[in-house]
Amino acid sequence: MSLKKRVYFFGNKTAEGNGKMKELLGGKGANLAEMNLIGLPVPPGFTITTEVCNEYYIYGEQKIVELVKQEVEDAMKQVENTAGGPKFADSLNPLLVSVRSGAQASMPGMMDTILNLGMNDEVVEIIAKKTANPRFAWDSYRRFVQMYGDVVLGLKPVKKEDHDPFEVIIDDMKKSKGVTLDTELSADDLKALVQQFKAAVKEKTGNDFPSDPWQQLWGAIMAVFNSWMNDRAILYRKMEGIPDEWGTAVNVQSMVFGNMGDNSATGVGFSRDAATGEDLFVGEYLVNAQGEDVVAGIRTPRQITKTGSQRWAVLAGVAENERKSKYPSMEEAFPEIYTELDALQTKLENHYRDMQDMEFTVQEGKLWFLQTRSGKRTGAAMVKIAVDMLHQGMIDEKTALLRIDPNKLDELLHPVFDKNAMKQAVVIAKGLAASPGAASGKIVFNADDAADRALNKKEKVIMVRLETSPEDLAGMAAAEGILTARGGMTSHAAVVARGMGKCCVSGAGTLKIDYRAKTMEANGKVFKEGDYLSINGSNGEIYEGQVATKEAELDENFAELMSLADKYTEMKVRTNADTPNDAAVARRFGASGIGLCRTEHMFFEGEKIKAMREMILAENSEGRRKALEKILPYQQEDFEGIFEAMNGLPVTVRLLDPPLHEFVPHETKGQEELAEAMGVDAKTVKQRVDALHEQNPMLGHRGARLGNTYPEITEMQARAILGAALNLKKKGIVAVPEIMVPLTGILYEFLEQEKIIRATAAKLFEERNDSIDFTVGTMIEIPRAALTADRIASAAEFFSFGTNDLTQMTFGYSRDDIASFLPVYLEKKILKFDPFQVLDRKGVGQLVKMAVEKGRAIRPELKCGICGEHGGEPSSVEFCHSVGLDYVSCSPYRVPIARVAAAQAAIKEKR
Amino acid sequence: MSLKKRVYFFGNKTAEGNGKMKELLGGKGANLAEMNLIGLPVPPGFTITTEVCNEYYIYGEQKIVELVKQEVEDAMKQVENTAGGPKFADSLNPLLVSVRSGAQASMPGMMDTILNLGMNDEVVEIIAKKTANPRFAWDSYRRFVQMYGDVVLGLKPVKKEDHDPFEVIIDDMKKSKGVTLDTELSADDLKALVQQFKAAVKEKTGNDFPSDPWQQLWGAIMAVFNSWMNDRAILYRKMEGIPDEWGTAVNVQSMVFGNMGDNSATGVGFSRDAATGEDLFVGEYLVNAQGEDVVAGIRTPRQITKTGSQRWAVLAGVAENERKSKYPSMEEAFPEIYTELDALQTKLENHYRDMQDMEFTVQEGKLWFLQTRSGKRTGAAMVKIAVDMLHQGMIDEKTALLRIDPNKLDELLHPVFDKNAMKQAVVIAKGLAASPGAASGKIVFNADDAADRALNKKEKVIMVRLETSPEDLAGMAAAEGILTARGGMTSHAAVVARGMGKCCVSGAGTLKIDYRAKTMEANGKVFKEGDYLSINGSNGEIYEGQVATKEAELDENFAELMSLADKYTEMKVRTNADTPNDAAVARRFGASGIGLCRTEHMFFEGEKIKAMREMILAENSEGRRKALEKILPYQQEDFEGIFEAMNGLPVTVRLLDPPLHEFVPHETKGQEELAEAMGVDAKTVKQRVDALHEQNPMLGHRGARLGNTYPEITEMQARAILGAALNLKKKGIVAVPEIMVPLTGILYEFLEQEKIIRATAAKLFEERNDSIDFTVGTMIEIPRAALTADRIASAAEFFSFGTNDLTQMTFGYSRDDIASFLPVYLEKKILKFDPFQVLDRKGVGQLVKMAVEKGRAIRPELKCGICGEHGGEPSSVEFCHSVGLDYVSCSPYRVPIARVAAAQAAIKEKR
Repeated sequence: MSLKKRVYFFGNKTAEGNGKMKELLGGKGANLAEMNLIGLPVPPGFTITTEVCNEYYIYGEQKIVELVKQEVEDAMKQVENTAGGPKFADSLNPLLVSVRSGAQASMPGMMDTILNLGMNDEVVEIIAKKTANPRFAWDSYRRFVQMYGDVVLGLKPVKKEDHDPFEVIIDDMKKSKGVTLDTELSADDLKALVQQFKAAVKEKTGNDFPSDPWQQLWGAIMAVFNSWMNDRAILYRKMEGIPDEWGTAVNVQSMVFGNMGDNSATGVGFSRDAATGEDLFVGEYLVNAQGEDVVAGIRTPRQITKTGSQRWAVLAGVAENERKSKYPSMEEAFPEIYTELDALQTKLENHYRDMQDMEFTVQEGKLWFLQTRSGKRTGAAMVKIAVDMLHQGMIDEKTALLRIDPNKLDELLHPVFDKNAMKQAVVIAKGLAASPGAASGKIVFNADDAADRALNKKEKVIMVRLETSPEDLAGMAAAEGILTARGGMTSHAAVVARGMGKCCVSGAGTLKIDYRAKTMEANGKVFKEGDYLSINGSNGEIYEGQVATKEAELDENFAELMSLADKYTEMKVRTNADTPNDAAVARRFGASGIGLCRTEHMFFEGEKIKAMREMILAENSEGRRKALEKILPYQQEDFEGIFEAMNGLPVTVRLLDPPLHEFVPHETKGQEELAEAMGVDAKTVKQRVDALHEQNPMLGHRGARLGNTYPEITEMQARAILGAALNLKKKGIVAVPEIMVPLTGILYEFLEQEKIIRATAAKLFEERNDSIDFTVGTMIEIPRAALTADRIASAAEFFSFGTNDLTQMTFGYSRDDIASFLPVYLEKKILKFDPFQVLDRKGVGQLVKMAVEKGRAIRPELKCGICGEHGGEPSSVEFCHSVGLDYVSCSPYRVPIARVAAAQAAIKEKR
Repeated sequence: MSLKKRVYFFGNKTAEGNGKMKELLGGKGANLAEMNLIGLPVPPGFTITTEVCNEYYIYGEQKIVELVKQEVEDAMKQVENTAGGPKFADSLNPLLVSVRSGAQASMPGMMDTILNLGMNDEVVEIIAKKTANPRFAWDSYRRFVQMYGDVVLGLKPVKKEDHDPFEVIIDDMKKSKGVTLDTELSADDLKALVQQFKAAVKEKTGNDFPSDPWQQLWGAIMAVFNSWMNDRAILYRKMEGIPDEWGTAVNVQSMVFGNMGDNSATGVGFSRDAATGEDLFVGEYLVNAQGEDVVAGIRTPRQITKTGSQRWAVLAGVAENERKSKYPSMEEAFPEIYTELDALQTKLENHYRDMQDMEFTVQEGKLWFLQTRSGKRTGAAMVKIAVDMLHQGMIDEKTALLRIDPNKLDELLHPVFDKNAMKQAVVIAKGLAASPGAASGKIVFNADDAADRALNKKEKVIMVRLETSPEDLAGMAAAEGILTARGGMTSHAAVVARGMGKCCVSGAGTLKIDYRAKTMEANGKVFKEGDYLSINGSNGEIYEGQVATKEAELDENFAELMSLADKYTEMKVRTNADTPNDAAVARRFGASGIGLCRTEHMFFEGEKIKAMREMILAENSEGRRKALEKILPYQQEDFEGIFEAMNGLPVTVRLLDPPLHEFVPHETKGQEELAEAMGVDAKTVKQRVDALHEQNPMLGHRGARLGNTYPEITEMQARAILGAALNLKKKGIVAVPEIMVPLTGILYEFLEQEKIIRATAAKLFEERNDSIDFTVGTMIEIPRAALTADRIASAAEFFSFGTNDLTQMTFGYSRDDIASFLPVYLEKKILKFDPFQVLDRKGVGQLVKMAVEKGRAIRPELKCGICGEHGGEPSSVEFCHSVGLDYVSCSPYRVPIARVAAAQAAIKEKR
């Protein structure tokens, strides 16, 4: 019908696709093709392209079946040929298949998967006969009916508090049989389950469970497409910034079985340690199980390597003898298969030159690879793996840098538990160190409570679950850390937490968690919702109460990475810091100056606020000047501290910016106190405070408008800044002040301020008979400033883009008021990102670009930087590089992130 | 010293300059030169250029004297040669000169002038001897000492409540002599005055009054330069938008004397009637007086023509006999001089092809012209003179149009007294119809009270003064109308009022005004400050109380002007109208459509506001939809009325724009009533109202953000608009709806709204089995919309620039809050104009231009208009033309103004 190829076959070391075709085949499909091409043992199958998913959302099911039917049937024949015997929908020698989604980017747990498709009442008997394993056959069948019923036929409850009807049936069966594990159920039990499952399907849907394998297959394919738009998938994509237009591919692959008895197994492996980055093959497997069992965390898996197994035993408190007998590693239990697996994982890593996350199955002693992909990793592992691979000659410097997700560095930069506090900490339980870091917060037991407390009440919470599932994503994102009672290092909780850079302890089996009572029992003590708990994602320990934290210590890999970044970057990274302490932290993180030193706080504390209020209440310039004289020495001292911390590096000081009403008391009592302290009428104070009230303070009397209506403030601040610099000069400390006028919109606004600053400087330098170099520049945060940047640059020596305000004015959004529509806008995709988090390139970015170009046309040496919160957001940093900014400035903890992002931008641009 | 020519001689029908050199010589200097060249009798003199004024402000007095000394002395010699006898600073035959300022634009009363310079104790005796008129000599001397003392030596008090020391001396003298008029003082009295004046100077300044004419001259020249920067001059320039850089020239001219006895006189004349435009030579003169006496309004002047004199007598209630004897016209009293004057005024008007305002002096029977310039005129006179001159073949159509100051048309468009109300009106006094129009308001007696009541208390006031002076400017600007007891048609009050387009009655001599008591007695009745008064500037009548007004009736001259405008304009002019009545008014004024029909008010009245509040309080979409259904029929009816009024013309309807909190009650009582009416808890209402509160509502949940979060509102409004159009279609009325989405900042924001509108239309058209054409477009009022106009134009069919909001966001100014800094910004010249009144071309205009260009690049037929308040401001209209807008839209009363401004823009562009 159509000339476009929609289905790609793979198998037996050949493939129609390859590893580069991720856009079309999805990550999983491309890798399955690539693995075949490399020569890995991969069960044959075919991939329906992501384009078909998009076509599905345009044309609907019927048309799609028409479009791909012939190609699917042809591909299935190739699979059958490769399998060399069994045929799909054959009643004598039936072939079972899996149907899996696979998008361009990995979306763990989000897309629905169907295994054992092709099963029906006849096929089960044949398989039972052929494998001489009726239990396996019926177990496969009941799994299939359950998954198909849940996913394709829609029996899975929408609300998670409702029970899955199949789980209810299984629980009843186990109860009646007096067993606790699924594996303890007999073939007959499973057979009975299948009948009950089918009855449940009939009851809920009104239809019989489909027995025709082709009908099953088409249903499953459509279910994959549908799942692309389920709420969880949409939420995940939103969190990860994945566009809907990518779509998902569908992978149909002949089944292999890890549950065909004790010489079968299934597992996952990482070519390096995803938590630490150590160059060690790690992974877990379960004997006589299918892959879902590992990920779901229902059974505690065994380790692949002996080293891994021994390490696990120490943490789990299992003695070596017991470990060897009960939980032997694959290396010990299946030495030959292990050798093949180890060789192949090395081959894969060498091929992809990145740490691989692999899924494999052993079917009756034969190893099959089901999947491989670049593995998710913690920030620490990310850094170590990149630096190690660089040292190992696997990748070059630029590639090492590009391997870094700058946002993930955040994990390394935040506090860990304080060692002294740790000595006091009471360990109440231990689990797996699933995602490193330290977290302390109030216990919550579900995602809603987590989100409510964290987002609405601004509390820090630890989310405690038996195990997590994709429904918990929002809660996990909101929590400080995640603690689960079940599941291993590759459980949902562990994988997702590492992806999010959240601290996570998983599989702490001694915890007794009661969701209904909202309690957790540990070490004989009951903890309620809201009680404090601390968890250590780096060693798996769980402590009662709050445990103090301290700064992270950065290792040599980190240092090497940072010096690599500095080698390739073209932009400097400064910091936004208002105190000597912040300045010192940022300097330690490699800040090359302060891009924004706000001076507001210098008016607030103690005596200063009194004098500030006196100034605001003053009726004329003399009164204001008198009050400001009291503030001057304090402010000069503040600047000395900051300049000293940044000795030799530039410090951009922004003159007073916020509206005056922020400094005065708004409550009657405060006004009365103020009136008394100042010896004026309370009514006078009230009148003045009322007069300062503004309808739209964001667009009101602030910034340069203050300095131009109350020039005395500018005068005092200029004197404090330059006076501080002169004082330090005597001590041999070099201050490099850049005085910045806020909120300039008109050239003359800046000129007036500059005049005051220069006049103050001249007077001060004469008084002191000494001088220092300084520059005077401006924030560009009013659209008009960007539009008339050529004029403003005729006087301003530097521009600093205040993209917070610039975003407010360019969009006409008040950051304080967007809650009423921003969520709807993000949900409806009217906005792809919150523009206060990710710089809007089309609008705000256009103004930034324009201002840089216009400014430099007049003053080629114009120094341009950004000091809005976007300065620490990697994609915004990339933009800043692209428009030729000299530096970005961000909060101290984001300095390393910005340094890497800046280097990446420079490298990417050259490619 | 310098090669640059700084001094230009004129006299005896020759001149070094000419009439085109206004920039360099100032208006007065250029005209003096030109008048000589034309052949008018003009006293010889010379002009120091405006460039010297600027040099003065750069280099200071000393350097300036150095620069121009030689040229001034040379020019003075030429003057002496031309005068043919008297020499400056000559003790035998002394020449007296006047020193006057003269800037490029006329600034009446603003600049200081010195007459009779060169006088001293010796010269006065010589002149007394030479003229055989000691009284004249001493009067000239005492005038000179007084003016020089006031202006050059700084004895004039800064605060107007302080007395001029010279006036105090004169008053004392008159009192001691028992006379009321200055002219009643004898030569000896005047001589005594001079001595007392000099003593006062010595006392105040510590120095003797300068007797050296050269010293006097240099002092006077510098005083002219200094006066360029006095507060009144700065205020005037600010009001008129005159740049400081223009500077003033200094005109030094040999004196002629209108006070040399009864065959001497001085006067002013207009070549046409400046109040009505009638083609009649009008003017006033005073016998035996100097020019200042006419303008100051101290003596009631006589008319130049007999016709004028007779008209005056009727108004003043003077019988013909009395008039002839006491107040003869110049035509009657000096027939020969009158004939010469009349011929020369015609010559001047024909030369300049515009109505001339001339100053002349008759010295002992010889006529001298001192000045001529284009005369200020009322709006009505402006239109009549332009159209008359066109008919008389003096000017062409384009020139006639360019002669119109569009803002002055405003005077013609505003209400006059209602004729029926006039029948009841009680005339309490009569004065001169100095500036036409009708005004009604509360009496105030000084400028401060006028400004306070009008600006702060928003009251309408009539400013009542004995006479006005430049110090009263701010008060006059704030008042509805001006009433004076003294002064003629060319008094300060009359000239300035006409310039401002204010209603003014001057010279109502029967009024008894007591500034201290703040009372006015008229017709035996005492009126206090705050009492109502009405004045008729078209006939000079003064009424007690408030008299109702009605629409102006526009004459055929106006109609002809408007059709001329339509002939040359390239832009349409629409109106902003929300009601059928406004729409009808605008259509009468020639609006070619509605550019902005706001729909907010349609939610406010009676039942609608209840339903609106119900909608806001609703908890979900269903609740909102239910409430909106109640509003729908009302809204549809509103639209029917507007569409009907604009039958056949386009109507741009803006969807709901303001934040919801504007619709809900904020007081506890209102909330309780609402809660009761709606059957909900008062607490619920309060919570919802509180939730709607925003920090910065201007940047909050409004415009398209409302329509996108509450799509039901858009749906209802689209249904009401299109439903109304369909209803009218059945009656044969053609509605041309253009549906406008407000506050678009993002393409998708518009797309969502457009989708709803088009879906609603499709559904409605199907229901009704009928359809109409409509377009969907957007406001461009968010900077981001302008920046991404190419994207938005891919979907929007028209752009309408909301320059109010666009100005707010581009500058980051809240219109509600600018009072705290805007006055300072205007005063400091940080802003040249209030950007909410005059469109800021550099910033906001750049965005408008960009948006038009980007939009039309994508959609060449994109219709672009402006609907901000700038749409009725002439210079902004000119800008709109220059960027190629299809139309401007403004308030109904400004439609004719915009039509003329648009035509002028088209004409100017072609030149």
